[in-house]
Amino acid sequence: MDEKNFDEISQEIIALLDAKKYMYARDKILGLQEVDMAEALEEVIERLGIEYAVILFRMLPKDVSAEVFSYLPTDDQLAVINVITDKEIKYIIDELDFDDMIDVLEELPANIVDKILEKSTKEERKQINTFLNYPDDSAGSLMTPDYISLQKDWTVGDALAHIKRVGMDSETVYTCYVKDRGRKLIGIVSLRTLVVSDADRPLADIINEDVICTNVYADQENVSEMFKKYGYLAIPVVDNEMRLVGIITVDDIFGVIEEEYNEDFERMAGVLDSSDAEYLDIGVFKHVRNRLPWLALLMVSAMLTGGIIRSFETLLSSVISLAVYLPMLMGTGGNSGSQSATLIIRGMAVGDIEMRDALRVFWKELRVSFTVGLMLSALNMVKILFLDREDIWVAATVCISMVVIVTMAKCIGGMLPMLAKRVGIDPALMAAPMISSLTDLVSCLTYFTLASVVLRL
Amino acid sequence: MDEKNFDEISQEIIALLDAKKYMYARDKILGLQEVDMAEALEEVIERLGIEYAVILFRMLPKDVSAEVFSYLPTDDQLAVINVITDKEIKYIIDELDFDDMIDVLEELPANIVDKILEKSTKEERKQINTFLNYPDDSAGSLMTPDYISLQKDWTVGDALAHIKRVGMDSETVYTCYVKDRGRKLIGIVSLRTLVVSDADRPLADIINEDVICTNVYADQENVSEMFKKYGYLAIPVVDNEMRLVGIITVDDIFGVIEEEYNEDFERMAGVLDSSDAEYLDIGVFKHVRNRLPWLALLMVSAMLTGGIIRSFETLLSSVISLAVYLPMLMGTGGNSGSQSATLIIRGMAVGDIEMRDALRVFWKELRVSFTVGLMLSALNMVKILFLDREDIWVAATVCISMVVIVTMAKCIGGMLPMLAKRVGIDPALMAAPMISSLTDLVSCLTYFTLASVVLRL
Repeated sequence: MDEKNFDEISQEIIALLDAKKYMYARDKILGLQEVDMAEALEEVIERLGIEYAVILFRMLPKDVSAEVFSYLPTDDQLAVINVITDKEIKYIIDELDFDDMIDVLEELPANIVDKILEKSTKEERKQINTFLNYPDDSAGSLMTPDYISLQKDWTVGDALAHIKRVGMDSETVYTCYVKDRGRKLIGIVSLRTLVVSDADRPLADIINEDVICTNVYADQENVSEMFKKYGYLAIPVVDNEMRLVGIITVDDIFGVIEEEYNEDFERMAGVLDSSDAEYLDIGVFKHVRNRLPWLALLMVSAMLTGGIIRSFETLLSSVISLAVYLPMLMGTGGNSGSQSATLIIRGMAVGDIEMRDALRVFWKELRVSFTVGLMLSALNMVKILFLDREDIWVAATVCISMVVIVTMAKCIGGMLPMLAKRVGIDPALMAAPMISSLTDLVSCLTYFTLASVVLRL
Repeated sequence: MDEKNFDEISQEIIALLDAKKYMYARDKILGLQEVDMAEALEEVIERLGIEYAVILFRMLPKDVSAEVFSYLPTDDQLAVINVITDKEIKYIIDELDFDDMIDVLEELPANIVDKILEKSTKEERKQINTFLNYPDDSAGSLMTPDYISLQKDWTVGDALAHIKRVGMDSETVYTCYVKDRGRKLIGIVSLRTLVVSDADRPLADIINEDVICTNVYADQENVSEMFKKYGYLAIPVVDNEMRLVGIITVDDIFGVIEEEYNEDFERMAGVLDSSDAEYLDIGVFKHVRNRLPWLALLMVSAMLTGGIIRSFETLLSSVISLAVYLPMLMGTGGNSGSQSATLIIRGMAVGDIEMRDALRVFWKELRVSFTVGLMLSALNMVKILFLDREDIWVAATVCISMVVIVTMAKCIGGMLPMLAKRVGIDPALMAAPMISSLTDLVSCLTYFTLASVVLRL
C-alpha cells in the first residue's frame, strides 16, 4: 500500500465518522496495518476531535487497540488517556510490550502512573521502577526484559519446546540467551541454528560464547553504532557484573538514529538541543532559549568584524565603492567555508576521515579552494570591469581578495572541525554559523588590507 | 569489546606483522568479529602496505576471508584483488552472500568481472546480469535472491524440514515466503509462528496474506521509510507482475539511511551530491565541480546585495559608520534564518510538520523572532551608545533594523522550505547558504532604507 492509497483511506474514515457511520469506519480502519491505524487516528483527532477518535479506538479489538495506542504520538496518547476509563488504561498498559509500556509510563502524569502501578504485583512494580530510572539516552531506556532465556544443560529439543511454550510473549525469539546460575550471560544461540540442528544435540555444543553486548548505562549512540556495524537483530544488555538485564531489538534503533542525526542537524545550525520534542509542541520561550545563545555569541564575533571596518573608515570613505563588494566577498567566504566544514564534519561522523588524515584534508582543501577561488575571481573580473565599469585597481583588489578569502575560508572550514574534535568539542558545532562568522572576520581583514596595499592609500 | 580495546589489538597486529611474526598476528586477528577483522586489515593496508595485508588475509580460514572481504571498503577490495590469484578471487566471489557479491562485482573493472562470470553457469550469469542492471538507488540494488520459499500445501513440519535442509544458505530464515505456481507472492509466515505451531498444521492456516512489499524499481529511500515505519526484519521485493524476485534485509538498510542523511547534509551546505564516495577518494576537480555551481549562483545573489549598497552610496559616504554595523546585521539575519530553516526542513523530513501547518509555523516564527530580535537589539543599544559612543540616531537605526531583520529572516527561513516543497523542490536546498544569501539582500535593503528615513537624509 502506498502513501496515496493511505491518504484516501484515512479521508474515507474521517468522512464515515463525520456521517456517524461508525461500523463502516471500523471496517475501513481494520484493513490497515496497526502503525497506519495509528496515523489514521491522528488525522481523526486533528480533524474531528478526540471524541470521534475514542469512539473509533474503542471499537478496535482489544489487543489491536493496545498496539495502535503504542504508535500514537505522546500528546495524542495523553489525550486518549484523559477520555477513557481507568480500567481501559490498565488494560492497554498490560497488553503493551514491556519497553513500549515504559515509554508510555514515562510520559504520563505521576498520579495516573501511581494508579496504574497500584494494581501491579510488588515484583512488577519493582521492575517497572528500575526501568523508569534508567537515564534517558542510555541502553537501559531502550531495552526490554522480554527475551528467551535457555539453560546450558538443555538439548536443542528442550530449547525448541521451551520457545514453543513462551515464544509468543517475547519481543524476539530469533536470538536466545544462555545464562549461568548467577544470571551471568554465557552465550547466545540463534533460532536458525536451533532449527537446523538435531533435536538431541546438547545446547552446549552450539552456543556462541563470543557475544557482543552493551552495558545498561552505555550511551544509546554507541548502541546504534553497534547495530550499524554488526548488523545484528538484537543486542543483549548487561549490568556492571555482566548479568543479563534485557535486550535491545533492531526496530527500536531507527528512532535513536533519527534522534542523533537531528541533534547534529540542529547543532550545525546553531540551535541548542531541543531534546526529541516536535517543533510545533515546543513553546515560544523554549524556542527563544534554544536559539538566542548562539545568535548572541555570533553577534559578538560580527561586532569584531564591524571593528575591523571601523579601523579602515578613512580608506572606505575615500573609495566608497569598496563597500559594494563587501557582502559578496563575505558571503562567498562564508559559503565556501561552510561547504568544507560540512563535508569534513560528516566525513568524521561516518568514519571516512580520521584525525591522522588532517594533512591530506588540508592539502585537498587547498587545491580545491584555490581552483574555485580562481574561477569565481574570473567571473568577478569580467563583471566589475565591464558591467560596473569600475577602476582596474578596485577590480584587482576584489579578485585577489576573492582567491585569498575562498582559500582561507575552505582551509578554516576544513581544519576547525578536526581541531574541535581534537580538543573534545563536538565538530558539528563548527558548521555554517560558526564558520561563516569567523570567515567574515577574515574576509573583511583580508579585503581592506589588500585594498590599502593595492590602492596605495 | 569497546573501541579502545580494538585500537590496541589492531596496533598489536601491525607490530606482529612488522616483526614478521605472522602466526601470532593470525591468532590475534582471529579473536575479532569479521567486521572488526576488516577494520584491522584496513589499518594494516594503510600502515604497512597491501603486501602485508594479503599475507594476513591468506592465512584466514576460507569462509572467514570471504566475509572479511565483503566488509572492506571498495578501494581496499580492489587492492586485494589486484594482488591475489584469479582462483582466489573466484573462491571469494562464490562464498559471498548474493547481494554482497553484486556489490563487489559492480565496483570491479569489466575484464575481471568477465573472467569471474566465465566460470559460472548460464543460469547464474543471467541472474547476476539482471541484478547488476538494477538502478543504483533502487530496491533491486539492495535485494538478495537468497530467501526461504515455501509451498502453500505443505504442513508446518514440512516447512521446518525444508528450512533445516536449506536454511544455512539463506540471508534470513526468519521470514519465509509462500508463492503460487506463477511465482506470485501470496503470503508470508515467520519462523516464530512455525516454531510455536503444531507440526501437522497446514501452512495455509497460518499464512499472513496481508503482506507489505516493495517494487524492484522503488527508490531505496522509500524502502528505508518502510523499515522505519513497520519495524520488519525483511521486506519482499516484487516485479510489476507481483512476482517475488528477492528480499531486502534490515541490516542492509542502515547504509541507505546513512547515505540519505548525508545527501541532506550536503544539500543543506550547498554541495552537489557526491554519490557515496568518501571525501578523500574524490578528486580535486570533482570536488570543484560539486561546489562551484552553488557558490557561483549565491555569488550572483550577493552581487545584487552589492547593488543595493551602491544605490545608497551617497547616504553611506555621509554617515560612513553605517558600514560598521552592516556585517553584524547581515550575519545575525543569516544565522537567524538558517536556524529556522533547519528546524523546518528537519521537521518536514521526519513528518512532524505538514504543509497544512504553514500558518502555525509562521505564527510561531513570528513570535520567536520578534522576541529574539528585541533581546539582541537591547544588547546592541547598550554597546553602540556606551562602547562605540555613536549618535543616538545611528543606534536607533541599527536596533530597529535588527528587530525587523531577525523577524523577516526567521519568517523567510521558516516559509521558504515549505514553499520549496509545495513546488516540488527538495526543501533541504533552502538551508543556510541559500537562506543567508536571501536574508543578506533583505538585511541590506532594510538597513539602508530605515537609515535614510531615521537619519532624514
